[in-house]
Amino acid sequence: MAKTSIAGYDADHVTIRGKDLVADLMGKVSFTELMLLQLTGKTPTPAQVTILDAVLVTIMEHGLVPSAIVTRLTHYGAPESVQGAIVAGLLGVGDRFAGTASECAQLLESIVAAPEPDRASVAVELVKDYRTRKRPIPGFGHPIHRDVDPRSKRLVEIVKAAHAAASAASSARAGAGQFIAALEHLEQAVLTVIGRKIVTNVSAAIAVALCEAGVPSKVSRGVVLTARCAGLVGHLHEESESPAGEAMWNAITDTVKYEP
Amino acid sequence: MAKTSIAGYDADHVTIRGKDLVADLMGKVSFTELMLLQLTGKTPTPAQVTILDAVLVTIMEHGLVPSAIVTRLTHYGAPESVQGAIVAGLLGVGDRFAGTASECAQLLESIVAAPEPDRASVAVELVKDYRTRKRPIPGFGHPIHRDVDPRSKRLVEIVKAAHAAASAASSARAGAGQFIAALEHLEQAVLTVIGRKIVTNVSAAIAVALCEAGVPSKVSRGVVLTARCAGLVGHLHEESESPAGEAMWNAITDTVKYEP
Amino acid sequence: MAKTSIAGYDADHVTIRGKDLVADLMGKVSFTELMLLQLTGKTPTPAQVTILDAVLVTIMEHGLVPSAIVTRLTHYGAPESVQGAIVAGLLGVGDRFAGTASECAQLLESIVAAPEPDRASVAVELVKDYRTRKRPIPGFGHPIHRDVDPRSKRLVEIVKAAHAAASAASSARAGAGQFIAALEHLEQAVLTVIGRKIVTNVSAAIAVALCEAGVPSKVSRGVVLTARCAGLVGHLHEESESPAGEAMWNAITDTVKYEP
Amino acid sequence: MAKTSIAGYDADHVTIRGKDLVADLMGKVSFTELMLLQLTGKTPTPAQVTILDAVLVTIMEHGLVPSAIVTRLTHYGAPESVQGAIVAGLLGVGDRFAGTASECAQLLESIVAAPEPDRASVAVELVKDYRTRKRPIPGFGHPIHRDVDPRSKRLVEIVKAAHAAASAASSARAGAGQFIAALEHLEQAVLTVIGRKIVTNVSAAIAVALCEAGVPSKVSRGVVLTARCAGLVGHLHEESESPAGEAMWNAITDTVKYEP
Repeated sequence: MAKTSIAGYDADHVTIRGKDLVADLMGKVSFTELMLLQLTGKTPTPAQVTILDAVLVTIMEHGLVPSAIVTRLTHYGAPESVQGAIVAGLLGVGDRFAGTASECAQLLESIVAAPEPDRASVAVELVKDYRTRKRPIPGFGHPIHRDVDPRSKRLVEIVKAAHAAASAASSARAGAGQFIAALEHLEQAVLTVIGRKIVTNVSAAIAVALCEAGVPSKVSRGVVLTARCAGLVGHLHEESESPAGEAMWNAITDTVKYEP
Repeated sequence: MAKTSIAGYDADHVTIRGKDLVADLMGKVSFTELMLLQLTGKTPTPAQVTILDAVLVTIMEHGLVPSAIVTRLTHYGAPESVQGAIVAGLLGVGDRFAGTASECAQLLESIVAAPEPDRASVAVELVKDYRTRKRPIPGFGHPIHRDVDPRSKRLVEIVKAAHAAASAASSARAGAGQFIAALEHLEQAVLTVIGRKIVTNVSAAIAVALCEAGVPSKVSRGVVLTARCAGLVGHLHEESESPAGEAMWNAITDTVKYEP
Repeated sequence: MAKTSIAGYDADHVTIRGKDLVADLMGKVSFTELMLLQLTGKTPTPAQVTILDAVLVTIMEHGLVPSAIVTRLTHYGAPESVQGAIVAGLLGVGDRFAGTASECAQLLESIVAAPEPDRASVAVELVKDYRTRKRPIPGFGHPIHRDVDPRSKRLVEIVKAAHAAASAASSARAGAGQFIAALEHLEQAVLTVIGRKIVTNVSAAIAVALCEAGVPSKVSRGVVLTARCAGLVGHLHEESESPAGEAMWNAITDTVKYEP
Repeated sequence: MAKTSIAGYDADHVTIRGKDLVADLMGKVSFTELMLLQLTGKTPTPAQVTILDAVLVTIMEHGLVPSAIVTRLTHYGAPESVQGAIVAGLLGVGDRFAGTASECAQLLESIVAAPEPDRASVAVELVKDYRTRKRPIPGFGHPIHRDVDPRSKRLVEIVKAAHAAASAASSARAGAGQFIAALEHLEQAVLTVIGRKIVTNVSAAIAVALCEAGVPSKVSRGVVLTARCAGLVGHLHEESESPAGEAMWNAITDTVKYEP
């Protein structure tokens, strides 16, 4: 019998994950806290909230990347539909930009699924497998940052600080820190198997942060979509006040020509 | 009791508008014929098919317009989803480009809804109403073609030829030609009320053609979407074989700068 | 010359609204704070953040409403695309559910745009205008809650408490509370013009809260989309773990029959 | 240098694949012919047009399947956006329903890529590979039609008849029929490797038909989207005239309950 355990409603109440919207949630939890309750089914710890906020902040906005351009050009043709323009931009949140974080998170989950003593060797096997299939290891490598990716470093620091604060307050979740350790196993495995250091990029940092916040790898793209949605709302608003759509179209028309 | 009169199926049959898909439709009707059956619920005449084909051909493809750019840039970020890239492009088929034809079709329907002797004066009232509200009359005016829009002229010719062929074959539908007459009333009303000729543009021609093909004005945007869908499939295929997405992004990055 | 004042990037930095992502934002602001910075261009006050959080919490999740059903049924046919399923659900965030809040916010903005002594009479004129056009006054009326809508009441309380806290901390924004006063003018005008009380519904409360948080009415649908996006991610995750899609399809097949 | 060879325009002309829209295409080619020109870059033969029409007719409409339900429920929440409702339905045209045809087409392309004497053994290797990976062979098997799928049989007959007519008119394309032969190799390989006949389903028939029409396997999902777009336009029109959305929602609410 199909059912949902997310939410229900009647004339007087909306209930989300067993909590009453008006009495228990409005004015008492932040958006990020409710998002964690929604996605995990459990009231989050402060450390989870700190980490998810940091991830959402990291990915909300990056300037005129393709998804922002798409939202603006869709508004150009269909100015009557806010949801249409936002949604068009979100459709480009796909494998190229958002896929690596979830693929890296899956590797981290595989490592943590093994008994602790075996994790280092599981990491080595995973890296070897990618090498055999001649595929890039998700979360590693960057065209510019050869040594350290600043966003990556900062995000991992935030995760560690959140765990430290939780320990100090005796509120640490069981297993806190194990995905950071898994990432270190992966970094070591890359060094061992490939023979040189490859920089840990921001996708790896997002992966490890979401895992440490208790967000399953299967949900990570949904987190990216939510953050990008807020970013695209800003672009749509700017476009409606100070349009760049026609200039964009002209720039493309001048660049890409028809040659039969 | 909610029901649908479009189609049903069981283990052995798909039935569309009362016709068996395998026995009555496959190999016997063209896509355009089935589209008319789907939209109007009736087997179309040859004239209706000729006209709808001409409309679909007119709007399928126009080169690197915003919807095509959007499909290509969405593919750039999400190469894994064909439907996502096509759909992103279709979301820009909105009021700016596709809205005028349906608005013009509504005017034509209003004129034809009146008894024949009143149609000229209804057209005058409609034009006056647009002038009072200081809105452009849908289907009239073009930034470049001041006298004749070649696509417009050609499409109306095709409609007239289709009706003539139907008359010759004694298969003309009742009322064939009345929307062309309504457009002529509208052209005359524009001349009378505004005091000079304004060119009949391609949106007016699409409006009159769809009305003459028996396609209700409410459905006209759906016809545009179907034609553009086929056009965008071509762009997505070319983009996957010979990418322009990165060049487009670079052109925009070079043109629209961040100024805090 | 087209430009953007939202964000820019180079090899080492992402800058959002003039702030460095790594140094100034990550780990220092919540998602809701960054969203306000993104949408308004200014660092928000604590009261703005409290209010926007309350709005986002109010609208994130409502159980199996049409947008959640759409996300699940889209996943049923296209399980390979997370963004496709989420986005399909967001396309239903349209005029019926999300339109009233922004329309009500426009009324509030019109009232506040008038000099203070005129605001009561502006409210009366607005209500009269809706009556003349025989349209429902946006933000008023509810099929069940005739006297008080509990979400509505709670949201307004949160806004007032946030303003009181800001006053106590001497951090109140100029004009804080004026949209609440405008809503009261509107409530009084409804009573005067129509002759009886009509309940202030949740759309009015969202409208007044977003106005008080400094979010322009044109952006309000974007806020709803962001909150709903997070909600739909939860539904998609549940659907992938514990599918209801086929049961939903069967329920519809049993209810809506084909009748040629 | 990025370029497009699909279409271009200037003030007076739209040129598609080197042909002038007004002079060469409008009134002279059907939608299906232009679609083949758009997708393949070449003027199609009558046999190609016959086959593509049959494919489009086969997949345009199937009643209240999930994509049609999604279009109707999206209209329920966002009645203001035609393109939004159509597009939401198209997002469900994914791997479950539309993926098998393109995967089967790839198998057929692999077989035809081999020299003729090797094709039978290539087919055997492909089937063995699927068996090893314990995956279903795309295009084979049906829950109900154990012996013959009527749509499948009919579509292959149409392809053969189109080729026969082309031969009679001496207009057959080089290689016509080789994908039908490849499908026969595949059917034989299934019989040999698995030891019993498995019915050739409609996805296999669509695959073979599109290959015989010269449509590359990478484009096949785009063809499905175009046909379904027309189908969904019909559903949206019926929904706006005679709504079933609320009944659908109620049916789901009665079936899938909230259980915290």
